[in-house]
Amino acid sequence: MMDIFYHPKGVAVLGATSKIRGGFFLFRNALDGYRGKLYPVNPQYQEILGVKCYPDIASIPEDFELVLYFIPAKFLPDTIRECAKKGVKGIIVESAGFSEVGSLGRALQEESVRLAREHGIRLWGPNCMGLLDGHSRHVFSFMYQDDWKTLMQPGGVSLIVQSGMLSAGFLMAILQRGGMGISKVASIGNKCDVDETELLEYYVNDPNTTVIAAYLESIKNGRKFMELARGTSKPVIVLKAGRSPMGAKAAMSHTASLSGESGIYTGAFRQAGIVQVYDINELMDLARGFSKTGTCAPSGGTAILTFSGGAGIVTTDLLHDRDVKLAELADATLADIKAVFPEWMDPSHPVDLWPACEKNGVAKVYTHAVEAVMKDPAVDSVIVETLASPRTGTDYLKQIADLKKKYGKPVALWLMGIGPREVQEQARAVAEDNDLPEFAELGRCVSFINGVRGHYRKKRALGFAV
Amino acid sequence: MMDIFYHPKGVAVLGATSKIRGGFFLFRNALDGYRGKLYPVNPQYQEILGVKCYPDIASIPEDFELVLYFIPAKFLPDTIRECAKKGVKGIIVESAGFSEVGSLGRALQEESVRLAREHGIRLWGPNCMGLLDGHSRHVFSFMYQDDWKTLMQPGGVSLIVQSGMLSAGFLMAILQRGGMGISKVASIGNKCDVDETELLEYYVNDPNTTVIAAYLESIKNGRKFMELARGTSKPVIVLKAGRSPMGAKAAMSHTASLSGESGIYTGAFRQAGIVQVYDINELMDLARGFSKTGTCAPSGGTAILTFSGGAGIVTTDLLHDRDVKLAELADATLADIKAVFPEWMDPSHPVDLWPACEKNGVAKVYTHAVEAVMKDPAVDSVIVETLASPRTGTDYLKQIADLKKKYGKPVALWLMGIGPREVQEQARAVAEDNDLPEFAELGRCVSFINGVRGHYRKKRALGFAV
Repeated sequence: MMDIFYHPKGVAVLGATSKIRGGFFLFRNALDGYRGKLYPVNPQYQEILGVKCYPDIASIPEDFELVLYFIPAKFLPDTIRECAKKGVKGIIVESAGFSEVGSLGRALQEESVRLAREHGIRLWGPNCMGLLDGHSRHVFSFMYQDDWKTLMQPGGVSLIVQSGMLSAGFLMAILQRGGMGISKVASIGNKCDVDETELLEYYVNDPNTTVIAAYLESIKNGRKFMELARGTSKPVIVLKAGRSPMGAKAAMSHTASLSGESGIYTGAFRQAGIVQVYDINELMDLARGFSKTGTCAPSGGTAILTFSGGAGIVTTDLLHDRDVKLAELADATLADIKAVFPEWMDPSHPVDLWPACEKNGVAKVYTHAVEAVMKDPAVDSVIVETLASPRTGTDYLKQIADLKKKYGKPVALWLMGIGPREVQEQARAVAEDNDLPEFAELGRCVSFINGVRGHYRKKRALGFAV
Repeated sequence: MMDIFYHPKGVAVLGATSKIRGGFFLFRNALDGYRGKLYPVNPQYQEILGVKCYPDIASIPEDFELVLYFIPAKFLPDTIRECAKKGVKGIIVESAGFSEVGSLGRALQEESVRLAREHGIRLWGPNCMGLLDGHSRHVFSFMYQDDWKTLMQPGGVSLIVQSGMLSAGFLMAILQRGGMGISKVASIGNKCDVDETELLEYYVNDPNTTVIAAYLESIKNGRKFMELARGTSKPVIVLKAGRSPMGAKAAMSHTASLSGESGIYTGAFRQAGIVQVYDINELMDLARGFSKTGTCAPSGGTAILTFSGGAGIVTTDLLHDRDVKLAELADATLADIKAVFPEWMDPSHPVDLWPACEKNGVAKVYTHAVEAVMKDPAVDSVIVETLASPRTGTDYLKQIADLKKKYGKPVALWLMGIGPREVQEQARAVAEDNDLPEFAELGRCVSFINGVRGHYRKKRALGFAV
């Protein structure tokens, strides 16, 4: 059903314009990636960006499935009536001015939903940034940044974002950081009809989607949502805003949605195997990390390899805060690592590799130590803390990535900034390109490892072959 | 007493070399900023970098106060004896091979301390990266990154770091990010003689130092340390590693220091008014934030101004997690903000400014709203969530900085990445240059605001005029 939004046959753009504002970007974004028929609608233009423009919906000669709506809210009911005559199946309402602005807006929204249902038309939004698809490159959103064209890579992460500005800012931050391939993005706004649960179902069944991440202020159909999350092997990561009483009140006035009682969600999420996060970058980081992590057999604990004893200890404390066990390395593993250590020092855990690096170089030492801990049955995941410096090169990151694949154990990477910035960014890019997710904070490495272990433990307990 | 290390009269560098390794960087770094007499010591050279080199300490014609020690550990006792004849007052031992490598190393370290005390010589380290001073530009450290020369700005933040690699990586990460002026940095390693408590006392009395941040695995003289922290109006921020049982064990093997019982520290820190942090970037972020925050009168709560309703709600939840109150804005404040809002929308708190920005532009709306909340007696601090885009410019950030100074209320800034990266970085630089600390995570804004409120509340309760 959501295909009428993501893969429509024919799209009309209400509010398309040549002036540099939302309606222009909405049309231009659609024009860039959509290969079907596009109909800009605006009585003031004969054509926009070389495409014939229509004064109204009735004047469009053919039938079409989708309308992108970016004109004032008050015209929505009449638009729905006109759409019914053209076989329209869905309208993405990106304009604001509905339930989020008070009782008049709410009445308008309710009237629109009633009318749309009467005519078998689905409504998306209102008060949202629309959608995009990283594979088909359909971008039905008025976002004005145009570097998505060069930055967006197709991939496995699909997003549901119940907040307009956040969905655009979010996406641009993701694209600019790099390293995360996009399947589908949905900005659902007031979600008067299409909601997070329907989209979750769509993503669960979407072959391009491997990881689902959602920013939600409320969940309308909670039981179904939890069932869907529980019934899929795909990781579902949720940032539930409005956990606190004041936050819930703010959510209420933001998208006019009841946030639900705080506390209830955490338990329900856990039962459904949903990975709960608490900050915006954390949602992006975990989605990216999961998209690069094929499996994990949570059994033992986490190994920490570091170039800084201090960073290793802080990481150990942070693992403890989240009840993640520091792996008990076998004597044979420590003996294996000892092979690259200087005579005068024995490795302990967390493994401070610096003395070994001084003797044998970063590349040799890290690859040797990563393989040693990967082989250890007591290790189910590895946090690798290393440095990006002109002298270390990046080939060893590829070797670590190969070891991660060979042994099927998740890795979180932390790169300390030593050496010129370009060198760091290159190292980060090499890591991400080779499916080694990198995180800026030690705490985020731990949050990711904790999320991965929890997800695979739960899914395996539910009988999934993951 | 610490002046013999930071401002010595004459410095000999044992292990100086022309080969590109530690001893070379140690000497070159000293040469770059130190204006007194420098004596490289190495029997293999006549001169290094144009400076006359001596075969041994005895050959140096004059007396001198400080030795930078970067030769194998075993020579330390003899070196101390030689130093005694030259009036040396302190030795910074940057070499490893002491208590951190086992019982032989420990014996060597103990013997050295005994000898040094006998001769009235202070020992710094061993197993450390030395020190630097952002004002005098004395850099007595073998760190091989040389961009500190262009990146290091003098400022108010002084650091104590009990971890070698971390202190260098740490420092370079701070310098590369920018926005933080440095007073003094001490990497104290095994701290066999000079310890964190003595340095804390020095920093407390140092007029260049306004903020003290420390990474510590143990605290040797805990009572004195807490008294010093309690007795100063300067913020003291501590990342105590080894909070967990496994972390404490790792700290033990890292710098051979007993980490002390977990849990005890948190209470002691609170009583002493120490701001406790839990992650490495958090320590840097809070130090930077405090260095740009002159005062705070914790009374009401925190105001949140945002361009994204979603980000505002998440921030509200995160404030709640840390027991920081969301300010109850006066009706007059909301009415004042309403002046820049569109007709159809009333502001609520957290204040989602986006609809107002669409009408009146980011610059006008943000400066108006910041002044409105600053004026409100119920507001003691402000989190400003804004965006860096080519269309908004950066002048309004300067105006926000001026308002922060005018009203004396701390601000935490969060910049969402919209628009090209250069634009974001420019906005970030403008913010930092104008003493608006910017944080990459919403959670970090909250951690900073929580730290600031706690610090000023405690110091005011203790009678300090801050």
